[in-house]
Amino acid sequence: MLEVGIVGATGYVGEELIKILLKHRRVNITYLAANIDRPTDIGEIFGYLKGRFELTCELPDYKKMISRCQLLFMALPHTVSMEMVPPLLKSQLRIVDLSADYRLKDVKTYERFYKVKHKNPHIVKEAVYGLPELYRQKIKEAKLIANPGCYPTLAILAILPLLTSGWIELDSIIIDAKSGFSGAGRKVNLDSLFSEVNENFKAYKVNIHQHMPEIIQELSRFVRGELQINFVPHLLPINRGILETIYLKKKKWAIKTADIIHLYKRFYKKEPFIRIYEEGNFPQLKDVINTNFCDLGFYTDQKSKFIITVGAIDNLLKGASGQAVQNMNIMYGFNETEGLL
Amino acid sequence: MLEVGIVGATGYVGEELIKILLKHRRVNITYLAANIDRPTDIGEIFGYLKGRFELTCELPDYKKMISRCQLLFMALPHTVSMEMVPPLLKSQLRIVDLSADYRLKDVKTYERFYKVKHKNPHIVKEAVYGLPELYRQKIKEAKLIANPGCYPTLAILAILPLLTSGWIELDSIIIDAKSGFSGAGRKVNLDSLFSEVNENFKAYKVNIHQHMPEIIQELSRFVRGELQINFVPHLLPINRGILETIYLKKKKWAIKTADIIHLYKRFYKKEPFIRIYEEGNFPQLKDVINTNFCDLGFYTDQKSKFIITVGAIDNLLKGASGQAVQNMNIMYGFNETEGLL
Amino acid sequence: MLEVGIVGATGYVGEELIKILLKHRRVNITYLAANIDRPTDIGEIFGYLKGRFELTCELPDYKKMISRCQLLFMALPHTVSMEMVPPLLKSQLRIVDLSADYRLKDVKTYERFYKVKHKNPHIVKEAVYGLPELYRQKIKEAKLIANPGCYPTLAILAILPLLTSGWIELDSIIIDAKSGFSGAGRKVNLDSLFSEVNENFKAYKVNIHQHMPEIIQELSRFVRGELQINFVPHLLPINRGILETIYLKKKKWAIKTADIIHLYKRFYKKEPFIRIYEEGNFPQLKDVINTNFCDLGFYTDQKSKFIITVGAIDNLLKGASGQAVQNMNIMYGFNETEGLL
Amino acid sequence: MLEVGIVGATGYVGEELIKILLKHRRVNITYLAANIDRPTDIGEIFGYLKGRFELTCELPDYKKMISRCQLLFMALPHTVSMEMVPPLLKSQLRIVDLSADYRLKDVKTYERFYKVKHKNPHIVKEAVYGLPELYRQKIKEAKLIANPGCYPTLAILAILPLLTSGWIELDSIIIDAKSGFSGAGRKVNLDSLFSEVNENFKAYKVNIHQHMPEIIQELSRFVRGELQINFVPHLLPINRGILETIYLKKKKWAIKTADIIHLYKRFYKKEPFIRIYEEGNFPQLKDVINTNFCDLGFYTDQKSKFIITVGAIDNLLKGASGQAVQNMNIMYGFNETEGLL
Repeated sequence: MLEVGIVGATGYVGEELIKILLKHRRVNITYLAANIDRPTDIGEIFGYLKGRFELTCELPDYKKMISRCQLLFMALPHTVSMEMVPPLLKSQLRIVDLSADYRLKDVKTYERFYKVKHKNPHIVKEAVYGLPELYRQKIKEAKLIANPGCYPTLAILAILPLLTSGWIELDSIIIDAKSGFSGAGRKVNLDSLFSEVNENFKAYKVNIHQHMPEIIQELSRFVRGELQINFVPHLLPINRGILETIYLKKKKWAIKTADIIHLYKRFYKKEPFIRIYEEGNFPQLKDVINTNFCDLGFYTDQKSKFIITVGAIDNLLKGASGQAVQNMNIMYGFNETEGLL
Repeated sequence: MLEVGIVGATGYVGEELIKILLKHRRVNITYLAANIDRPTDIGEIFGYLKGRFELTCELPDYKKMISRCQLLFMALPHTVSMEMVPPLLKSQLRIVDLSADYRLKDVKTYERFYKVKHKNPHIVKEAVYGLPELYRQKIKEAKLIANPGCYPTLAILAILPLLTSGWIELDSIIIDAKSGFSGAGRKVNLDSLFSEVNENFKAYKVNIHQHMPEIIQELSRFVRGELQINFVPHLLPINRGILETIYLKKKKWAIKTADIIHLYKRFYKKEPFIRIYEEGNFPQLKDVINTNFCDLGFYTDQKSKFIITVGAIDNLLKGASGQAVQNMNIMYGFNETEGLL
Repeated sequence: MLEVGIVGATGYVGEELIKILLKHRRVNITYLAANIDRPTDIGEIFGYLKGRFELTCELPDYKKMISRCQLLFMALPHTVSMEMVPPLLKSQLRIVDLSADYRLKDVKTYERFYKVKHKNPHIVKEAVYGLPELYRQKIKEAKLIANPGCYPTLAILAILPLLTSGWIELDSIIIDAKSGFSGAGRKVNLDSLFSEVNENFKAYKVNIHQHMPEIIQELSRFVRGELQINFVPHLLPINRGILETIYLKKKKWAIKTADIIHLYKRFYKKEPFIRIYEEGNFPQLKDVINTNFCDLGFYTDQKSKFIITVGAIDNLLKGASGQAVQNMNIMYGFNETEGLL
Repeated sequence: MLEVGIVGATGYVGEELIKILLKHRRVNITYLAANIDRPTDIGEIFGYLKGRFELTCELPDYKKMISRCQLLFMALPHTVSMEMVPPLLKSQLRIVDLSADYRLKDVKTYERFYKVKHKNPHIVKEAVYGLPELYRQKIKEAKLIANPGCYPTLAILAILPLLTSGWIELDSIIIDAKSGFSGAGRKVNLDSLFSEVNENFKAYKVNIHQHMPEIIQELSRFVRGELQINFVPHLLPINRGILETIYLKKKKWAIKTADIIHLYKRFYKKEPFIRIYEEGNFPQLKDVINTNFCDLGFYTDQKSKFIITVGAIDNLLKGASGQAVQNMNIMYGFNETEGLL
């Protein structure tokens, strides 16, 4: 049994990791840490764990991380990870980091979007971007995984096949994204009060969201020429789930929906967590919530200059903790779907 | 006091009409009808009206409509209106029809999108499309108002100034629309159950929604050349409100957000129900719910090829009943905001 | 026009006061204050007010309160009111205080339940408990109104007629109360995050809630002997509304539902905001939300030892701001329902 | 591997059975049936199952049930079960029936509350009431299990220890119950529309709910004297979960909360799915949703004549499908928690 720890165990992402790992047949959770007032049994924090799982959640301690774990999931706010990761890399530990700190290869872009100075740019290069559908081979050997952001996971998986096919314009990519509340993390502020979110809906960070450069970075590796994306995230009054409606301008009008579906089915034919919908069908959030699936549906017609793609994932699973476990499964040669179906 | 009646009083739109008209200082509600089992006091149907307003909701009866009312609001499903309206037009009654039956001037388009044969195409021509910001003068004299659809009201108001300015491409208009549940009307089916909508989100009628031709019809009157719109409506798990995120391709990159805001403020400077947001601000649904306002915010930058517009209305007010009363206010020379602020 | 001010204008209760007073034909809002960073236009704080109402919300200033207003609504957290009210009482101002600071006549009970020392016990005696159905005459002349709590308003109105009738036992009163989120006020903490409240339901402060002594105080005035109440409040995942299910033990089994309904109809026959339901019917929250009504339904049968009462109000209206305006209407001889229907 | 089938696979209860059984290591789902238009892949009906589980859901067929299954879960509306069960009992099949048809031993009571004539009263006697905490031994051998109702499961588990202790009065039992929407089943009517349930809350079937006799039947077996319960169910605007607040009159005032907790811990000390909370703590729905646990918390004090019990379960798990699988585990000697933790 692999011994794994979670740092940041009390957030939404940490909580979800615990739930998945308890069902996983090849690992034991041997360590939980978070920025809490005093060591607390995890069943006190998440009541539904009482009587199912007992472990004290402690304040982070490097020695314990190293002595108790083989793999560490870091489910921390960005900027906290880049404080904690470097010393740990000197040990035998392998790390799946779920923050944004090691995702952007261009440190200046990171600093512009996250508004902090990066403390260990040299480590950024070592980190493998943990999107299995793109980097499965590198993930196998990785010491440090930069687990992708929720919006980018879906956007990249939804756009990449069409992009590499050469069928679409590079300068007219529009991503209209809608996310459940947990995407923002378990942080306390006036905008997060129940009454502010319930029966409301809004756009936020219009075309300035920090996930934009992540999407551009990954998609750009596969094409020549500059990519131009428009990205508007919105906040849904629900607990979890992301749906993205993506508009891509066709170079040739002759492309049919069936061609696109055929392209995606072939592109992802060996992928266990990608489901391509038949013509006329589109994913809804309840098809993917509580699963690690990424679902994709498509529309175009002869008159339209655009292809419309509707994609959906659970932001806490394929968009965070589920993908982190998928990465772990690949790193240790477990069945890739273990704990995730 | 103007004597008004509501046919279709038990639906969401009819209910909202009652609420507005009870606050209106220039009208009396003198007639309520709906397709119900037996005549029922309206306070039985909408419990919160008990003790505030007493009137029996009856089965529709032409004679009563004509004898009791000067103005009739028809809040009926499409295809039902075109059965009921023609005989009434022979009386002295003026009619605000909230169905789709008289909105589309091209009857063939109507028949294709609504999948029925139109029964009185000649009447379509007489009807005035009831968007006050465009047709205030015609509304004053109208005998029959075709009250606009909820999605089109917002889309037209959000796009028209930019379209007439000549700053945008006609073939790359993208409308990503999100509506609360009441937009679908009070109809019973499996998809409308609480558990199917709650904690869910989905796109529907992707690029085939019946409001598309209505948007195209109205916008096309103001430009030469063929308009191409992409329209994806989505269902929000909330009771009411529509937010549309609209992407328009610029002809020239030099346009700034400030230019757009300036354009819209001038275009709508006398409009009592249109609010233009300052740069960096965008409407959210709770800014417009329970109001008749249409709120608009804008974004573009030098690098982007698109203008992003975020608009919001209450689908039951500016998107239906509120606009119907605004039309009535214009028809009878009342203060245009009476009952609506 | 009466000139009124609101201190605490940015909370849920203050917000609701603004909404009601804007519709009120006999008052002008001339002053808004709150504990904010800097003076801010109220339309910045509540976006839907933009273009309808302009007034700057300032930091509280005694001189302005006194010079600009005749009546002041104090919508402050408890303990803050008792700091601010005493100096104002020396002016000509009349005050409706919506905090708990002047409700409990027994200062020791106040101090035990609110866990602070009371700073001006002598003022407590002067304050009139602002429940119109009980104290309409005193309210007319009052200088300082202690506006009732939300749970007590409903509990007292629901229980009092049966209590004074002598039909029920004093020691077996059970109030099972359920409130929407806004009852807790607009305060930021981890328990108030959207994800913690949404899709959840819980009891809190089981039999130790600070509204218990308020209910006992008012009901006790009308009977001899000690009252024993059991009170369990619960948090509903909705924005507003309170429903209480109340169980009262009958002294005599022969009482029928019809007798109870008759009793309540007579007791409240002149009350404009109390609605008694016919046998077999019970109020639901949507019957009272956005109204100032208190709705009551009843059940008992020959076999049962208990009477079951189901009552509902909007916690922000009859449970707070609506009742405050009803009190103002009484104080100034306005129509009691002005602004509230 | 045990071969199991589900009849009524498309309802909420059937859906939940599929989800549990797919995780269960000792069974295969070999048959799915429902009252549907045409045989349909289950992944078409529940989109999230696509790519995880393939099986056609068919119209019910006795021969297939008998030839393909060893155990059948009947997740049907009441009155439908009593049509289908009798012929199946002649085969070697064992049946867990989740309807109400075989729960009430007194057929007349059944007929009064369910308003139908029972078609096979003789079978009622054979059925074992499937509450493991009471009838584990009988369940082991049972041919036909009458799986308990959701409200009764929680009420019985919450009340029984205090009842058998002799500490409470038999005639003053009050159960104030609140259930999520799925408790009503996946049936289409106007009251079940999203807009009618969302932002609403109501009592229904006040003291006349069909689960009352089930609670009385089971509790009465353990005491002498007539039980008197008051039962008011309420509808919560959430998908799932039941919370009951129960008020029990003490015979002696000296009982302390600690005594009660001690009593319950001892009573349920071997039970894998019952969790007793420490003093001052009470369960909330999110502690039990998506689990098979029944959580219980208690309050009393020296002044109070009542004991307050707050209990919570997931209505679809411990209140239906989870308990059905727990029963199956007992019937076949599997680990009782298999598939349920």
